[in-house]
Formats: sequence, structure tokens, C-alpha cells
Amino acid sequence: MKEHDPAGLHGSLRSAALWVEEGLRNIALRRDPLSRLSSLAVYSLESGGKRVRPFLVRAACSALEGLPGKCLNAACAVEMIHTYSLVHDDLPAMDDDDTRRGRPALHVESGEAQALLAGDLLLVEAFGELMETPLGQARVAEMAARLARAAGPGYLVGGQYMDMFHEDDAGEEWIERMILGKTAAMIRVSLELGALAGGADEEVLALVSSLGDRLGFLFQLTDDILDRCGSAEEMGKEVSKDSDRGKRNLLSILDIDSAVDLARKTAVSVAEGFRSLQGDWEEVAALSLYLPGRRR
Amino acid sequence: MKEHDPAGLHGSLRSAALWVEEGLRNIALRRDPLSRLSSLAVYSLESGGKRVRPFLVRAACSALEGLPGKCLNAACAVEMIHTYSLVHDDLPAMDDDDTRRGRPALHVESGEAQALLAGDLLLVEAFGELMETPLGQARVAEMAARLARAAGPGYLVGGQYMDMFHEDDAGEEWIERMILGKTAAMIRVSLELGALAGGADEEVLALVSSLGDRLGFLFQLTDDILDRCGSAEEMGKEVSKDSDRGKRNLLSILDIDSAVDLARKTAVSVAEGFRSLQGDWEEVAALSLYLPGRRR
Repeated sequence: MKEHDPAGLHGSLRSAALWVEEGLRNIALRRDPLSRLSSLAVYSLESGGKRVRPFLVRAACSALEGLPGKCLNAACAVEMIHTYSLVHDDLPAMDDDDTRRGRPALHVESGEAQALLAGDLLLVEAFGELMETPLGQARVAEMAARLARAAGPGYLVGGQYMDMFHEDDAGEEWIERMILGKTAAMIRVSLELGALAGGADEEVLALVSSLGDRLGFLFQLTDDILDRCGSAEEMGKEVSKDSDRGKRNLLSILDIDSAVDLARKTAVSVAEGFRSLQGDWEEVAALSLYLPGRRR
Repeated sequence: MKEHDPAGLHGSLRSAALWVEEGLRNIALRRDPLSRLSSLAVYSLESGGKRVRPFLVRAACSALEGLPGKCLNAACAVEMIHTYSLVHDDLPAMDDDDTRRGRPALHVESGEAQALLAGDLLLVEAFGELMETPLGQARVAEMAARLARAAGPGYLVGGQYMDMFHEDDAGEEWIERMILGKTAAMIRVSLELGALAGGADEEVLALVSSLGDRLGFLFQLTDDILDRCGSAEEMGKEVSKDSDRGKRNLLSILDIDSAVDLARKTAVSVAEGFRSLQGDWEEVAALSLYLPGRRR
């Protein structure tokens, strides 16, 4: 397995995080004088996190020699959708998590109704933000349609539902379907939006989509491994909560050695897939190769 | 005050309701085999209601001689956004209403987490549905941007927040701003989307937007009058809940006679405004004239 220089990847991730955080400081919802609700949404947007989805938007756009300015709105939009899903996931009626990224969850900080509405706000503003993309309206409309599909019943919110309300005998096929929704859809659409901003044609886009699903699968697989083996400090949340709750994940059907082995093989295969695409996809390949060894 | 034939209006409302309900039977989320979540969203979409917003979409499109088929996706989208806002509003952390339109609220029927996610689903799918509009992508992108703005922090969700968390001395200006968000934004954007589907130019669109805000204000004013004076049977929910909770609404600052008088005058003025526009806006004018006398 070819090893990638982690310093290079970490520098790219850090640079993308600073870039999207600058973008998030200028989103429209901050300019709204109506109510305190916007500041609640900002609290969650500022909670840090690795900003992997914005990184993927920018990396895909840059891979095709698109300018980062063309995809900044999309990068903010995917981070807003990701953040909305965390805010709603943490609510007492859902996963009931009191902390998120080492800080009090929004409903703990501000109240349940406030967190509910702030999540709604982030979801709807993601579309408002995306629609400000400085590209032709036809391309922007294509991006919005893909974002709605990725966040919709077949994917993100459907996957969250499956995660909450599974059947006890849910098997491999069911778990993979849940992951394609809960995690992979937003990883995939991040790459798709970046590629669209970079001018991808349909053929490249289809390959990116397919590889994006596999990268998302890998992302969840390594998250499940960490949930079993990581430390609370490293994760920034409680550990083994999934299995303690009897939730189904990939570690329900794979022993830990098989899971680690599957992660390594998938990482190499996904990296090779990206390297075979037109353009320079080295940043995305590096992320894939990094994931099996990640500590958080 | 010129009286409008209520039979004609009721026929138009009923026809628009049947039309959008046919559309709602064919939305993409029903074709999703992933999870039970879609059927929960459908439960709320099928709870009836007057379908005023889809009526306004169609009426504005028809006023400019647009074909109803051009605005059916938009009509479904605004009804989905309206329904999401009701589902989340009814949750225990919010208004804590057990019934909606004479049936158990979704969280009573299915559970809180389920209702939360079904609301999220309706919100995101509204955008997915709108993006399928059979018009040029530039026009569809314009529609999506307006829908996001109407549902966003400055309007729908911001207004819901203001409604939940007001200051005790909130005065007339504050209440009017809340209404522009909570109620008027979706009334206005319904007319805007219909007008855009009907091919409106910017000048007509600006007039429609402004009149839409005033129609939305009238809608809330007559709702507040009903909340004070209506019966539970007529409203399909508990009466005087707003004032019992100490919520601020227009009846906090107007006595009932002044409110009824203001409603009558606004109705006539808004109807005249629509009648002065290019095209045949009689259906919308009729709705405006009907509102001061509505019983539910």
C-alpha cells in the first residue's frame, strides 16, 4: 500500500477548513437582523469539526482546475446541511447527546425548541446559500437538485431514520443501505458539487458519484471502528454509544480485524479510482488512504 | 364593500385542492422504498387543510395565462414547506399541540423523533420537488432562491422563532415583522412562484410580492380574530391557545372591533390592488374579500 504524506493532507484539510470558515463568516443568515435564531445556527457552525465535506467540494473543483471561488457557496451549503443533521440528531428525542465536538450541544446551550428551529434554518439556508453560486443558473439548478436528493428521503434523512428505527435482525444489505444514506450521500454530493463547479462533464460526474459512495462507505466504516476502539477525548463525544444503544452498524456484522482489513483495502481501491480520473485528484486519494489510520 | 360570490371562490379552492392533492400523490418521496419515513410525511400531507398556498400558486399562474402544469411542482413544494412547519410547530418542545386538522398530530401518531425527521424530509423534498418544474433551469433557479428566502431566517423560520420567544413588551412593529415572517412570506412566495411560472416580468413580480405581503398580513389578522372568537370545531384545534399562552398577536394590540374593521379595509384594498394588475387576478381578489368573513 502506497503511503501518503500525512503532513500534506493535514495541511490541505486545514487550509480548506480556514477557507470554508471564512465563507461561513459571510453567509446571508449572519446579515439577518430579525432574531437571535441566526446566532444559534452560527454557534453550531462554529463548533469546528474537520470540515471534510467542504474539503471534498474544493478538492473536486480544484482537481478539474476550477477556481475555489466557484464552489465556496456549495462548500458552505454542504457544511450547513451536515451541521443541521448533527443539531437534530443530538436532540433528546433523537440520539440525546449532550456534547458535540467538545462543547455543549445546541439544545443544551439554548433549549430544545431553539435547536430544532436552528436546525431547520441551517437546512433551508443551505439551499439559499447554494443558489448564490456564481455560475450559470442551469448549472446551479443541477447542483440544487443533487443536494436535495442527497439530503432527502432516499439518502441523508432516510438514513438517519433507518439508524434510529432499525429492525433487530437488520443484516448487511440493510446496514450498507443505511450508510449510503446517513453518511455516503453527503460525501458523494460534496464531490459532485465540486466537480460540477469545476466544469465536469456527465461521464466524469458519474465516476465521481460512484467513487464518492465508496469513499463515504469507508468514512463510516472507520467511524464505526473508532466508535468501538477510540477514546472519548479523541472522538469529542461518548464512545461505544452506538453499540451500547444496540444500534446496528458495520461492527455488528464484522469482527474488528475484518473491519480494519476491509477499510485498508477499500482505501487503496478508492484512491486508485480517483487517481485514474481525468484531472489531479491527489488530495481526495490522500484522504482515502488516511482514513483507515485516523484517530478521530 | 363589493361582495364576492362565495360559491365561485369555494369552487376554485376545492378545485385547486383536488389538483394539488393529485400532484402530492405523485411526488418523488412516495416512490422511495427506503424506509417508513416517507409514509409519515404523507400522513401529514394528507391531513387536508384548505390548500390556500397551492391555490395561490395556481391562481397567479393562471392570472398570467400560464398552464397549471407549469406550476404544479411549485404548488406541491409550498404545501410541503407549510406542512413541515406545522409538524415541527406541533412538537412538545414547540407549541405542543396534540391535534392538527382534527387528527392526531404526527408526533402523537408516530413519536417525536419520527415527526422531527418527517418534518426535515418535507422541508428538503420541497426543494427536490421544485427543481423538477418543467421550465427553463434559470427560471427554476430563481424560484428556488425565492423559496429558500421565504422559508429562511428572515421569514418563515425566523417568524416561528419570534412567535416562540418574544419579549413581553413586543409592540406593533415587532408583531407585524413576526407576521411577515411566520405567515406572509409563504403566502407571498406562493404568488411569486405562480407568477414566475406564468411568465411574469420583474415589474409585475414586484407588485405581486408587495400585495402578497399584505394578503398574508390579512390572512394572519383574520386567523387571530378566529383564535379569539372562533370555536374549536370550526378551527380544528384548540381556541384562544395563543392568548392563553400569553403569545403576542395582533389582538394583543387591537381591540376586536378595530381588528375586524382593519380586516375589512385591508381586504378591499388588496383586492383592488390585484384587480389593477395585468392579467385576470379575480380568484386572488375573491380570496382577499372572503377572508374577513371566514369561519375557519
